[in-house]
Amino acid sequence: MPSISRKGQSMPESPIRKLVPFAENAKKKGVKVIHLNIGQPDIKTPKVALDAVKNNTLEVLEYSRTEGSDTYREKLAGYYEKQGVHINASEIIVTTGGSEALAFALGTVTDMGDEIIIPEPFYANYNGFATANGVKVVPVVSGIETNFALPPIEAFEKAIGPKTKAILICNPGNPTGYLYSKEEIEQLAALVKKHDLYLIADEVYREFTYEGKKHHSILQEKGLEQHAIVVDSVSKRYSMCGARIGCLISQNKMVIKTAMKFAQARLSPPTFALIASEAALDTPQSYFDDVIEEYVERRDLLLDALKEIEGIKVAKPQGAFYCIAELPIADADDFAQWLLESFQLDGETVMVAPAAGFYATPGLGKNQIRIAYVLEKEQLVKAVTILKEALKVYKKS
Amino acid sequence: MPSISRKGQSMPESPIRKLVPFAENAKKKGVKVIHLNIGQPDIKTPKVALDAVKNNTLEVLEYSRTEGSDTYREKLAGYYEKQGVHINASEIIVTTGGSEALAFALGTVTDMGDEIIIPEPFYANYNGFATANGVKVVPVVSGIETNFALPPIEAFEKAIGPKTKAILICNPGNPTGYLYSKEEIEQLAALVKKHDLYLIADEVYREFTYEGKKHHSILQEKGLEQHAIVVDSVSKRYSMCGARIGCLISQNKMVIKTAMKFAQARLSPPTFALIASEAALDTPQSYFDDVIEEYVERRDLLLDALKEIEGIKVAKPQGAFYCIAELPIADADDFAQWLLESFQLDGETVMVAPAAGFYATPGLGKNQIRIAYVLEKEQLVKAVTILKEALKVYKKS
Repeated sequence: MPSISRKGQSMPESPIRKLVPFAENAKKKGVKVIHLNIGQPDIKTPKVALDAVKNNTLEVLEYSRTEGSDTYREKLAGYYEKQGVHINASEIIVTTGGSEALAFALGTVTDMGDEIIIPEPFYANYNGFATANGVKVVPVVSGIETNFALPPIEAFEKAIGPKTKAILICNPGNPTGYLYSKEEIEQLAALVKKHDLYLIADEVYREFTYEGKKHHSILQEKGLEQHAIVVDSVSKRYSMCGARIGCLISQNKMVIKTAMKFAQARLSPPTFALIASEAALDTPQSYFDDVIEEYVERRDLLLDALKEIEGIKVAKPQGAFYCIAELPIADADDFAQWLLESFQLDGETVMVAPAAGFYATPGLGKNQIRIAYVLEKEQLVKAVTILKEALKVYKKS
Repeated sequence: MPSISRKGQSMPESPIRKLVPFAENAKKKGVKVIHLNIGQPDIKTPKVALDAVKNNTLEVLEYSRTEGSDTYREKLAGYYEKQGVHINASEIIVTTGGSEALAFALGTVTDMGDEIIIPEPFYANYNGFATANGVKVVPVVSGIETNFALPPIEAFEKAIGPKTKAILICNPGNPTGYLYSKEEIEQLAALVKKHDLYLIADEVYREFTYEGKKHHSILQEKGLEQHAIVVDSVSKRYSMCGARIGCLISQNKMVIKTAMKFAQARLSPPTFALIASEAALDTPQSYFDDVIEEYVERRDLLLDALKEIEGIKVAKPQGAFYCIAELPIADADDFAQWLLESFQLDGETVMVAPAAGFYATPGLGKNQIRIAYVLEKEQLVKAVTILKEALKVYKKS
């Protein structure tokens, strides 16, 4: 039998993948599973986006343009302008999801054996894209006691070596919910300029900031033009994860020129989704106001409920819609599986994402879980009640 | 300024990319450009597919399933069954276009420094995916005098070395239009089994075969189960290139398990396009009969017209909708640019794809062009008339 590539063998599996069969089994047994484990919002997609697709008059579903149409990219530039980010259409490549933007960014700036530094815990799929590129992730640990704030800049300095090509951040953070301050972004900017590195920022949650806090984009940093690469996506902004439209933004012309070559190989982003994404730019501000209000309520409700659990530690999220909770247990992987296999409260249980999969350093995050608060409030409260009761039983078992 | 990756620097540009500004300039000057250079069919997408999207009732545009839904994959398996290919749903991973299926296949079977053998001329983007994976393409040349039939198996034997991981074919071929016979596929099957290699077949043009000739899939080869990986797509089949839906098929469980890890990293294929693709499976046979009839007419018309050009050599395509023509000129790159820059006949000119970009061996195909016959017959005839007149003028210039 011919062999599988070493790269393929070392590709990580999704940290929740191994729990899926247990969830399916629970459902087969008639147990209702409340999913705290996925970032698929239940928020409705803006009608203007859905209608544009329903009312399309295409007769031939043609390739779209490799980098996205001029009209879409110009409208996108207008959207960023409103966010205080001054870029133009030629600095944007429209991609198939934020995922593809990240893949293009890594392909553009790294070769096999290179290193990228990422504050951990981080979005688990960064590991997949790094492995696919033969790139080593060098983690810099952030802690629950600081709400997962930016680690001290000295920790980054220590992590930088001759093979380091970039620092990758997610802001606001998945899975931490942490929103980097302007000062933290400035520190990172100074660092990458000093060491001539790229700063790649996954800003797909830019809209989701709470308590009046403002998102500060790396594209707003003066003098960072040649270093900044932004990964963005319509997935969370308009609750249209299934569109698979994102973009890569950089003012570094060589980055755009090179990323375009990767883009050409895959021809074009999906046409229907582009119709939805372009129309979505006309979503009224009231939609976002309502969504943010809803998420703040959910977050507050969730945090209040979680605090009632004895021995729990929770980092208060200021953005995105995730939080990390530290539980009074030894092994969240075991606990998550046990919840699906052996526990129910009135016919219901919960599925959580064990947080170890979000850390690159072995052993870290073993007693932590990530909770996505993308469910209706009633469901969230029920889920936390189940967690609370489950912990009582689990600790005795 | 931070550096661009070596990989990014060596990523090839699309062979027609450099002609695009010249085409744009011609259009600005009021010259109509007839495009013989792209594989974007003008054929209408089946109504059943377009209607399914128009009539969708989604309120939240959610992620689809990473590998495609069970229902879609089961219907797909049913489609293949009708083609005489016996596979089941679990042997299919739905991808974002055939492009992504190829990327997953290369990621699964190759590491940096490995080699894949491809008969040349071949689809230019294979170069892009190979480069992105750090993989060397080893070409085995096929010639216009045999209509680009499979090169002698000894030529493949010679090309196989310790780093060879796979042979990649496109059947029917882009850019050659050649349809491999059952015997040719059997020869390749014996070869990959002998050397324990993968055989990757891009079969996206499987429907487009002419004169009653039948496509023979590598999945129909007994004993090849552990070696065969098929790349497929809805793009050409249903004239929905903009959907960006394809699939990877293999009966090798380790291949599927590994490709799934690459698939998980990018989350899911585009949801609207999946709706269209699943509905497209209900396209009536009459649609394909009409389309094939149309292509046969176009091909015959094109070949008859091309034969009138003095000194031309054309390979007769038995499948797909491309053909390679050898022109009585030295440099098709120069000719193609000249057509756009300096020639017009009654206000019109043509854009062709210089064939050198489809060869890996430097110097080959320099006097060849690829013609895609995806235009209405009237346009095709006009395009060939322009080519004919242009050649008279060009040779004197």
